[in-house]
Amino acid sequence: MRDVAIIGVGCTKFGEMWERSFRDIVVEAGAQAIGDAKLNGEEIEAMYVGNMSGGQFVSQEHIGSLIADFTGLASTFHIPATRVEAACASGGLALRNAIIAVASGYHDVVVAAGVEKMTDVETGVTVDALASAADREWEGFMGATFPALYAMVARLHMHRYGTTRDQLAQVAVKNHHNAVNNPRAQFRNEITLDTVKNATMVSDPFTLFDCSPITDGAAAVIVAPAEDAKKYTDSPVYVLGSGQATDTISLHNRADFCTFGASVAAGQRAYEMAHVTPNDIDLCEVHDCFTIAEILAIEDLGFFKKGQGGPATLAGETAIGGKIPINTSGGLKACGHPVGATGIKQAVECVEQLRGTAGKRQVDGAKIAMTHNVGGTGGTAVCHIFSNERRK
Amino acid sequence: MRDVAIIGVGCTKFGEMWERSFRDIVVEAGAQAIGDAKLNGEEIEAMYVGNMSGGQFVSQEHIGSLIADFTGLASTFHIPATRVEAACASGGLALRNAIIAVASGYHDVVVAAGVEKMTDVETGVTVDALASAADREWEGFMGATFPALYAMVARLHMHRYGTTRDQLAQVAVKNHHNAVNNPRAQFRNEITLDTVKNATMVSDPFTLFDCSPITDGAAAVIVAPAEDAKKYTDSPVYVLGSGQATDTISLHNRADFCTFGASVAAGQRAYEMAHVTPNDIDLCEVHDCFTIAEILAIEDLGFFKKGQGGPATLAGETAIGGKIPINTSGGLKACGHPVGATGIKQAVECVEQLRGTAGKRQVDGAKIAMTHNVGGTGGTAVCHIFSNERRK
Repeated sequence: MRDVAIIGVGCTKFGEMWERSFRDIVVEAGAQAIGDAKLNGEEIEAMYVGNMSGGQFVSQEHIGSLIADFTGLASTFHIPATRVEAACASGGLALRNAIIAVASGYHDVVVAAGVEKMTDVETGVTVDALASAADREWEGFMGATFPALYAMVARLHMHRYGTTRDQLAQVAVKNHHNAVNNPRAQFRNEITLDTVKNATMVSDPFTLFDCSPITDGAAAVIVAPAEDAKKYTDSPVYVLGSGQATDTISLHNRADFCTFGASVAAGQRAYEMAHVTPNDIDLCEVHDCFTIAEILAIEDLGFFKKGQGGPATLAGETAIGGKIPINTSGGLKACGHPVGATGIKQAVECVEQLRGTAGKRQVDGAKIAMTHNVGGTGGTAVCHIFSNERRK
Repeated sequence: MRDVAIIGVGCTKFGEMWERSFRDIVVEAGAQAIGDAKLNGEEIEAMYVGNMSGGQFVSQEHIGSLIADFTGLASTFHIPATRVEAACASGGLALRNAIIAVASGYHDVVVAAGVEKMTDVETGVTVDALASAADREWEGFMGATFPALYAMVARLHMHRYGTTRDQLAQVAVKNHHNAVNNPRAQFRNEITLDTVKNATMVSDPFTLFDCSPITDGAAAVIVAPAEDAKKYTDSPVYVLGSGQATDTISLHNRADFCTFGASVAAGQRAYEMAHVTPNDIDLCEVHDCFTIAEILAIEDLGFFKKGQGGPATLAGETAIGGKIPINTSGGLKACGHPVGATGIKQAVECVEQLRGTAGKRQVDGAKIAMTHNVGGTGGTAVCHIFSNERRK
């Protein structure tokens, strides 16, 4: 098995892009990544694209062929292009499969992209499409949408561990603060605990500001064998670990839903492969689709004991400069959540932090960074661990 | 890179299954494969699932988690499960990615499944969902459906090479004949050239019998390192080659559409990896979504010169007992075409032929078999070459 490195990254601005199409935005992200890696494009041997629901959002499947075509890699080079999907974890899986393709020796230089165009359909269609990440027969048909499912998780966590409304709200406050310094972020404004608590109710205890937004966006990273990485870039970022896991797709079939078993398993697998522990991680991009999801994640990944995620957040331990900076990009909440792109954007943020080019949101001396990308209510989780130093 | 073998296969009956759900049929195929490989299930480390459009056909995305859940592999083992999509080539890509995962050393025993449930929505929805495999903005919005797109290919092939109506019709006649002896096939009845030519017109020159049907079905194969294969089964089938390629998603952007560039490239890559030529292939399952598609395929894969596919078919050279038996399963036309499952079903047919267990449709002495799975009008193609003898 070959070690793998990231040699280039690209990411569009996240937001509502009424004037641009699905294919436009992914081409932009890919072109940025190719430029960043100082390639001219011909070196690219294969492509994986994470996309949750082109079929429901833009009436388009066969995403791999489409993107290979519009990046100019299909008609001349006939590169293999594969779309992967695991709801909001689709981007993380695209990266993982690109890594496996290089590790196997099947390919050398591979693009992992993620894309979602969510604003081209009316909100009811968007909400219903997102609900197809849950168990349609046992959750969706009963009327459960994602805010409702995660609200049940929040209520149980509050009941069992005493997690407070302010602790949940602080996740959003911190992530908005981080996003102020991220040029790509959808929302670059500071908010307060009162902003969150006094906003329109969505699903008790969540208001509008506890929920990640509907977003258009695309991101891309290029991976290559670690041994060749310095041929392309002076600042390669090495993949130390990759872990992927599933759990039951429906929440009601879990033994417990204050812990996401898939997050725990994916994290452990990534730690084992990387030969590191949670204490070694300098920053982590976690999947904060709702405020409670970030608190679950920082507990499930072992940064804090179960039940301590809320107090730690309110105490500033997850802020930049804290014990373990979480979501320096602004997270899904404030950077935005184009579902298929999110897992790749998380990796882009880690690469910029490990290169030391994250500007005002830079974590000083960051050496090891981690991503945590979730599908549905924890039916899928995928984690990656990166470093700016090659594995010994 | 490790060599890979298939150690077990399973496939449901193909057809209209009004009384069974998406998840039911894929669990059946998976259970068959597990039984065939003499596993008890715990050995399975990962899963790839080919599915074109669960979102549009059954309002369900997040297919990997769903299937890991309903096969009992999520809650206890948290196995990684990844859905891959390339329209009608989704099954072939699931197999390829399972092979790469084993080749890489990331996993040892991996399931590649394919599934589609197409009959739960009205026909208009089905036709529109299938059109999302083409370029929605430049083909779909202009009213082009798949029969119309392939009809243009047929008309050009007839004009340029003199391919006749009878030659096209013979593809369907032969495939129906083969399906009579396939217990899984959707249509097990003989037809004649007149049946095809006198049927309801769909898109000139195609009648109903030139077109593959709408089908429910699922199939699964289990792959493992070749060096371990005999631990599980007395009759492993070895993967000699795998090739995948793209071309422009839309037909109008091709330099020529009497040749599918992706088929040519995928075939050549598979031949090179397997160190074989078309002359070494004993049988091939090709992607006959329309009768012209089989003629294109047998030319693009090098079994016949361009323009000779039609005459060779009418002369019986692609029948069982002919020069190169094509679609012994009955192909997409008569075995049925549950789009995400087709690529895996093709591999199941090859395995049964190479084991010598294909009954009345057995190709005597078959040693090397090939699959060819296409997405859209050739925007994706993936080929695999298998043998019952391990690579020297």
